[in-house]
Amino acid sequence: MEFDFISWIRSQQKPTRLVTHPAGDDLAILKWPEDDLLLVGIDQVLDGVHFDSTKHDPRSIGKKAMNRNLSDCAAMACLPAAAVVSVALPRDVGMDYAKELYLGLREAADPFYCSICGGDTASWPGKLVLTVSILGRSGDIPPVLRSGAKVGDSIYVTGSLGGSLLRDRHMHFEPRIFLSREIAKKKRAHAMIDISDGLSSDLGHICQMSNVGAVIDASKIPIHADAVEIAKIDSRSPLEHALHDGEDHELLFTGPHPLPPEFIEIGKIIEGTGITLDRDGKHEPLQPRGWEHRL
Amino acid sequence: MEFDFISWIRSQQKPTRLVTHPAGDDLAILKWPEDDLLLVGIDQVLDGVHFDSTKHDPRSIGKKAMNRNLSDCAAMACLPAAAVVSVALPRDVGMDYAKELYLGLREAADPFYCSICGGDTASWPGKLVLTVSILGRSGDIPPVLRSGAKVGDSIYVTGSLGGSLLRDRHMHFEPRIFLSREIAKKKRAHAMIDISDGLSSDLGHICQMSNVGAVIDASKIPIHADAVEIAKIDSRSPLEHALHDGEDHELLFTGPHPLPPEFIEIGKIIEGTGITLDRDGKHEPLQPRGWEHRL
Repeated sequence: MEFDFISWIRSQQKPTRLVTHPAGDDLAILKWPEDDLLLVGIDQVLDGVHFDSTKHDPRSIGKKAMNRNLSDCAAMACLPAAAVVSVALPRDVGMDYAKELYLGLREAADPFYCSICGGDTASWPGKLVLTVSILGRSGDIPPVLRSGAKVGDSIYVTGSLGGSLLRDRHMHFEPRIFLSREIAKKKRAHAMIDISDGLSSDLGHICQMSNVGAVIDASKIPIHADAVEIAKIDSRSPLEHALHDGEDHELLFTGPHPLPPEFIEIGKIIEGTGITLDRDGKHEPLQPRGWEHRL
Repeated sequence: MEFDFISWIRSQQKPTRLVTHPAGDDLAILKWPEDDLLLVGIDQVLDGVHFDSTKHDPRSIGKKAMNRNLSDCAAMACLPAAAVVSVALPRDVGMDYAKELYLGLREAADPFYCSICGGDTASWPGKLVLTVSILGRSGDIPPVLRSGAKVGDSIYVTGSLGGSLLRDRHMHFEPRIFLSREIAKKKRAHAMIDISDGLSSDLGHICQMSNVGAVIDASKIPIHADAVEIAKIDSRSPLEHALHDGEDHELLFTGPHPLPPEFIEIGKIIEGTGITLDRDGKHEPLQPRGWEHRL
């Protein structure tokens, strides 16, 4: 099965101007554009942690694995250029399942002209693991780091937050690449990240890397309808879901004030460390609590 | 544990001339040298398939995961430049185990000045999976492909083959990067691969990609002492082990004749397809049978 699947994948891959030798050798060969910074990362999805193979179809699993990496490109304001993929397949899944995984990866990557240019497939007695390593390029826009937040910056998010598990939004989010490129091109962001671990954690990452603190206004946090719904069936409030749930994959960035209203301002960068939550004038420290959710 | 481990890893990573921002952001940032081709691949090791966590220590597992990728660089005659690593950790292993995995990766990568510039860590109820994606650079030597073999080429290997499982040689092989660069620099190889799947499979890959056939002389195949030993305890001959066992990670290449005696000539590239084994003048077809071994 492995060799058949590999032959099939190779037949899907065509050379491009960037990827001169996409597959069939030990490594793919790329001609990297001059003056273009190369950005690289890796991200895996695990059955039972990031998806549930008894519930989610392989097309969606492939899409999620790729979209998580594309969202990392969005976080840095770079363009995804190429990806390599590694899959550990349970012994009992067949060729069709493996093809669906690949087609899901492609469905996510194709709109961004991101080539899948190599991979590794093995079957094993364990559960499904799908790992994508992404190569991004800066083009004419310098990458936006987590470390650039400045005291006095406003803090923005690009959409409402919380409850991504309720209706499987965590399987079907949109990586905000074009929006992020626009933000960076107009120099609207000093620091940026995508909300994968949860607002409290990801804002914590920006504060830590930028050596600053943050104060956010509880009344301004955009709460997703799914956060309101999910709060009815567990013991946590909609606000708590919006603050701590992960996998919204909206952008979180800091920069000058004011911006157009599609960028939702939720607080300010201040001197110090850590995050303060302002609830109707009462200030309380906000501990990062992302990554708590499990399927 | 995950965040502690990530902090520890970040503290290990320093910027270099190539890797300007190694860690701490969504992606690492590299300034790719002009006129240098970029080679990229990915390769995973799975508990129970490529190693046995009840028998092999984490340092060796990390080393093997990196060395498999470095050996892919050797196969293409490129220099490993940077790597990103993803690890799925069983829930019951601690920080020390994770550190040992990382130190094993570093032990393999450091001699080649290959940076580990990013990664992804998650714990799960499954078994250990360690995935490395490698970036190689061509420097002043063009990559050697699998597809370049020419009718009339001699076929060479760089060391003796077979029985890599017996004494765990598959955990502790040397990636032949410097040797491969020397071979390529002196234009000695038209096509090259590393022997990971086994001689019969890997020579099959060269033949298929080059649209040629091969005839190899049974009496010239260098048989490893471990292949002789392991043949005593199973039903297969030392020659069969040398032909079909995987994970020797010696180089297999085709090129002009003659070469110095450290390159062992085992046969010739001919017109046609497939591999023929010459046993004392009797010719028989040789079917690829690599990847049969399992731990």
